[in-house]
Amino acid sequence: MSTSVLNQEIREQPAAITRLIERESAAIARIGAALVARNPAFVAIAARGTSDNAARYAQYVFGAKNRSAVALATPSLYSQYASAPRLDGAAVFGISQSGQSPDIVAVLDAARAQGSYTIAVTNEPASPLAKAADVTIALHAGAERSVAATKTYTLQLTALAMLSAHWRGGGLGAELPALGGALTSVFEVETQIRAAAAVLAKHDHCVVLGRGYNYCTAFEIALKIKELAYVLAEPYSTADFMHGPLALIETGFPVVLVAAGAVLKPELDAFRASLLQRKALLITLGDHHYEALPGEQFIPLRSGLSEWLSPIGAVIPGQLLAYHTALARGVDPDQPRTISKVTLTR
Amino acid sequence: MSTSVLNQEIREQPAAITRLIERESAAIARIGAALVARNPAFVAIAARGTSDNAARYAQYVFGAKNRSAVALATPSLYSQYASAPRLDGAAVFGISQSGQSPDIVAVLDAARAQGSYTIAVTNEPASPLAKAADVTIALHAGAERSVAATKTYTLQLTALAMLSAHWRGGGLGAELPALGGALTSVFEVETQIRAAAAVLAKHDHCVVLGRGYNYCTAFEIALKIKELAYVLAEPYSTADFMHGPLALIETGFPVVLVAAGAVLKPELDAFRASLLQRKALLITLGDHHYEALPGEQFIPLRSGLSEWLSPIGAVIPGQLLAYHTALARGVDPDQPRTISKVTLTR
Repeated sequence: MSTSVLNQEIREQPAAITRLIERESAAIARIGAALVARNPAFVAIAARGTSDNAARYAQYVFGAKNRSAVALATPSLYSQYASAPRLDGAAVFGISQSGQSPDIVAVLDAARAQGSYTIAVTNEPASPLAKAADVTIALHAGAERSVAATKTYTLQLTALAMLSAHWRGGGLGAELPALGGALTSVFEVETQIRAAAAVLAKHDHCVVLGRGYNYCTAFEIALKIKELAYVLAEPYSTADFMHGPLALIETGFPVVLVAAGAVLKPELDAFRASLLQRKALLITLGDHHYEALPGEQFIPLRSGLSEWLSPIGAVIPGQLLAYHTALARGVDPDQPRTISKVTLTR
Repeated sequence: MSTSVLNQEIREQPAAITRLIERESAAIARIGAALVARNPAFVAIAARGTSDNAARYAQYVFGAKNRSAVALATPSLYSQYASAPRLDGAAVFGISQSGQSPDIVAVLDAARAQGSYTIAVTNEPASPLAKAADVTIALHAGAERSVAATKTYTLQLTALAMLSAHWRGGGLGAELPALGGALTSVFEVETQIRAAAAVLAKHDHCVVLGRGYNYCTAFEIALKIKELAYVLAEPYSTADFMHGPLALIETGFPVVLVAAGAVLKPELDAFRASLLQRKALLITLGDHHYEALPGEQFIPLRSGLSEWLSPIGAVIPGQLLAYHTALARGVDPDQPRTISKVTLTR
């Protein structure tokens, strides 16, 4: 198992995050100062796949900490329909591991032509995306050899959190510089993760639920479960799920729930009880605010992070859950069928 | 079958749309003129469930026709985290059938307090949402007795298309006033829909794919399939699906694909061929630009509408597909378990 490239890259994340904070803080501080000076009317973000899930994190962190509305761009309007929405007055981000996607580059080209402030977030500072942008945040991920992105995602989240802190003013604070160290503890719960994976592996579909800051975590865990274990995993906000889609839940229906932070605890605890009452197969990834309920599989999130940073710690056990589910289903997580590393959608 | 309330309401949609256009055109024209005068920096929309899928339509129609970026609001920032993003300079929509959702009302309250121009789109002009907004577009749906929303959705789309036309200037044009008539032809293909439903009903999960203007259609058909037939149906942009999630496709994996308009035809035809090569079970809802491929279930979209209005015609056969799938699975579509008509998320 230690020979799996994916497994190695999952475990590299704390060190990669420490490296990002060391190497990129000064550049991110300058971009934060530029955002303060420009005071954009809103933020628009173009991204796909895992990077789009990082954009979902930005919706909450920029929304709550910087009071900025965030629009997820609709790249096809720029690349297919040739009718680009106005982005003047906005700060426009393109997020892409490879920096190669033509449709993401098209959004930044259009935005820059309109005079927007454009920011690339990428692992490849020489990529077309970086060249299209006014400024670039480099993720310093090193080679990501696994086809399924893991460290790219947590580095994207960390970079966005750092930028939010600088944009807000007052620098990184105490928690961000210590992030890499805090994350080492998330690997202590692999026994519980393996037990949950053994159960999940018996199913061909599940839902993955989160809300607020961890809405993105539900999306990213669901994506890893789909692409690694070939289990159809649909992500949902618990608030949206409680309406129509709750009808899906019957005895044994598998639900993965991300629960972090005190704000949502009353609602999420009531929701967990309701899922257990319906005899769902519930796997809860819960932080220090939550306790295991009788009848659920509980995976403790050990990082101890504040809620706004909790998605960085919460996704790693989710990556491991997808990894162990793939192994339990007899799938080689280093050779996922049909997915390619570089996204070239037009 | 004619006794089903849901089935009746699905069939009422052409007449309901004609009524909306007759009764609400003057009010929508005034709101369109106000948008021209205010020239908002961007649009933000707060909505949940079916109404959120109407907001996805607005992302494309306002983006392409009015060159306005559209941010889907994150209601929990307003209702749970008490840190409302700035919306001054934006036009802010709340879309809700009942107009009751506290979190959607919270977004409009915050926006109006900041001086944004606020617009309610609802079936209930006396609702809290309408009271919170500067102006209201009433949908004149009449009573929607079925728990699963159908006519509410197509009325929301029609109202948003009408507003886009007035905002663009030049009035409704020729196609919108004739919309109700054009839609009657979508019911001619029920034999093909029943055949596809008989196949889909044998599965517990599927994916529903669309892109561009019909991205919203994939979401809304997937929601109906989930809430009526208890089949886990995950919606996806074809552009995003082609990356990681394509790994899910193996022999017999059910895929529902919405294909409308000439712009996306080269890409969507290549994608259909690739799905058939992987031996997916493919159900294509295709308009007059598309022909049936050997090996797929093809449901013709007969409305003949332009691509920007095609989602209004494309969703109705999708509603019928969900309805017939429910019947084939022995589920009463008028009594879906656990979903409630009025959304009261905080």
